[in-house]
Amino acid sequence: MSQYGSAVECALHCLLYVARADEGGARSARDVAAFQKLSADYVAKLFTRMQKAGLVTATEGLHGGFRLARGREEISVLDVVDAVEGYKPLFVCREIRANCVLFDGGKPAWAGRGVCAIHAAMLRADAAMRDSLAETNLAQLSEHVAHVVPKAQQKAAQNWFQEQGAARGRGARTRAIFN
Amino acid sequence: MSQYGSAVECALHCLLYVARADEGGARSARDVAAFQKLSADYVAKLFTRMQKAGLVTATEGLHGGFRLARGREEISVLDVVDAVEGYKPLFVCREIRANCVLFDGGKPAWAGRGVCAIHAAMLRADAAMRDSLAETNLAQLSEHVAHVVPKAQQKAAQNWFQEQGAARGRGARTRAIFN
Repeated sequence: MSQYGSAVECALHCLLYVARADEGGARSARDVAAFQKLSADYVAKLFTRMQKAGLVTATEGLHGGFRLARGREEISVLDVVDAVEGYKPLFVCREIRANCVLFDGGKPAWAGRGVCAIHAAMLRADAAMRDSLAETNLAQLSEHVAHVVPKAQQKAAQNWFQEQGAARGRGARTRAIFN
Repeated sequence: MSQYGSAVECALHCLLYVARADEGGARSARDVAAFQKLSADYVAKLFTRMQKAGLVTATEGLHGGFRLARGREEISVLDVVDAVEGYKPLFVCREIRANCVLFDGGKPAWAGRGVCAIHAAMLRADAAMRDSLAETNLAQLSEHVAHVVPKAQQKAAQNWFQEQGAARGRGARTRAIFN
């Protein structure tokens, strides 16, 4: 098992669609899921976690959905990782240093003093990994996507999301007339 | 699940006992396991992996066992991690970017071009973590242990290992006489 997998990847891709919403408009989690052919329930769960972590805000109603809670430069990959996975240490120390055939019964005080040197090396690697994840933000990812994805596809995507919203509006009006 | 756990911790602690063997003598995997109250089979498996990775060499016979295959400065925490865990990427990319409701059937060439920006951020974090793990070596860990563990305990440990070897010698002589 790798440390991070599909939850992080899905959440970041979803946030990129929220970040690209026109004029700070909201994006429906259901639309974002459908656009990427992902499970709507799974995506809803990820948005709930990101909302709890303060990365997105939700609005109710026909044109409701999720918006970024702060600027794209202020949401790092690390923020998203921690939001959807929780803090996950790289290494769990089992304090093997406290096991010794010579410790008759309990372990002496020195055997548990400070952080085990092996654990300390792992904590440094953990910090290096987290520092690196904190260096990339949504604005940079979004810029990369804008560079790679052809303009026609970007336009088609915007149209698709607008059409989903419009269809919901028509559905609501029809229901208002016939109900 | 964290990325690394007891296999890495056990392997490093075991190597430290091999590194501290007097005058480059060999250490029996069974003794190293017994000293730390660890499963002998588990420790044997870890030594086999470290031998395959070229970190230790094995000698047969009554006073056989494992020795470091190179200097303590030349065995890093990363070497041990890779030996016992194999290369484990931090993140497995599922290429979600290739899923799009607008891609009718196959995905267009641009959708799979280069490394996904999310995957690239994860690869940078992976490299930062591995670079950090490569910065700590067995010599540094061993020095830390020598500093923390009281001299009397270090001496008692050396005596315990010598006594195990001597007991095996007496056992062999007894068997030679009576068999």
